[in-house]
Amino acid sequence: MDNASFDPSLDLMLVQDVPLPPEAIWAAWTKPEHLVHWFTPAPWQTTECHIDLRVGGLFHTEMQGPEPAQHFSGLGCYLELLPNRRLVWTNALLADFRPNPSFADSSCGDFPFTASIELSPSPIGTRYTAIVRHRDTAGRAQHEAMGFTAGWSAALAQLVVYMQTV
Amino acid sequence: MDNASFDPSLDLMLVQDVPLPPEAIWAAWTKPEHLVHWFTPAPWQTTECHIDLRVGGLFHTEMQGPEPAQHFSGLGCYLELLPNRRLVWTNALLADFRPNPSFADSSCGDFPFTASIELSPSPIGTRYTAIVRHRDTAGRAQHEAMGFTAGWSAALAQLVVYMQTV
Repeated sequence: MDNASFDPSLDLMLVQDVPLPPEAIWAAWTKPEHLVHWFTPAPWQTTECHIDLRVGGLFHTEMQGPEPAQHFSGLGCYLELLPNRRLVWTNALLADFRPNPSFADSSCGDFPFTASIELSPSPIGTRYTAIVRHRDTAGRAQHEAMGFTAGWSAALAQLVVYMQTV
Repeated sequence: MDNASFDPSLDLMLVQDVPLPPEAIWAAWTKPEHLVHWFTPAPWQTTECHIDLRVGGLFHTEMQGPEPAQHFSGLGCYLELLPNRRLVWTNALLADFRPNPSFADSSCGDFPFTASIELSPSPIGTRYTAIVRHRDTAGRAQHEAMGFTAGWSAALAQLVVYMQTV
């Protein structure tokens, strides 16, 4: 998979050069003890993170907003793991690639997507390219309206600040 | 992924020892010119097959029954490709792991699944283990009622007969 297959009608993308080596970004995405510090834009918090770092392994986060009712569980499955280069996961599948029952009822408001994080050399450290591929234009529109660009940028800024202290 | 994660409430399995080397079974699954000869139990035919043999690549078949209206398109995405050992694909995703829009409407009668074909040594040639993982018990029941065991066994028998002539 590469960026050549980006489809602007279905996909969302964030590209940013960040002052960290690829190894630090990889660690931030793959070690729960790091991920909980940056994954959810404040004031939301990632209260739990479980990572089974293998293709077909489960990626599980619990996210809590400032109000008690603001709680989300994130479940997904790793699809590609090229250390320090590319991490791909989808919420359309769970452990061992089983289709996720969350999308059996299309009225539930969730939308399936596949996220890829590409890391490549840049003058200041690493070029970070996140592409999120959606099932349909409605899924893309819903994710955009939720604040994809602001949210993923804020999380990445938190990642950089946190990883510079590690 | 391995067979240890088989869940009898959600999954279906076919295990059979076949008199072919793993290389022949791998070729039957990965070369369109072979696959069209065995993939659909007679009198159904596989009229088209396109294979982009990479993780994230599309697996596309067109299947035709004896009546003109009996036509199905099969679309999926490769998840694991270990030559002569393991082939995994899902219809829950399309090319580049994009979630498949066929499952946006749960009333359409389709059901998402992930199929894994494991090949291991056996006294007569190869032990062929096919596991199909479903989203929920309804998906498993629907697939079983369609004749999973008879259908996958018949296709495998066709595969053996055909590959013995190649």
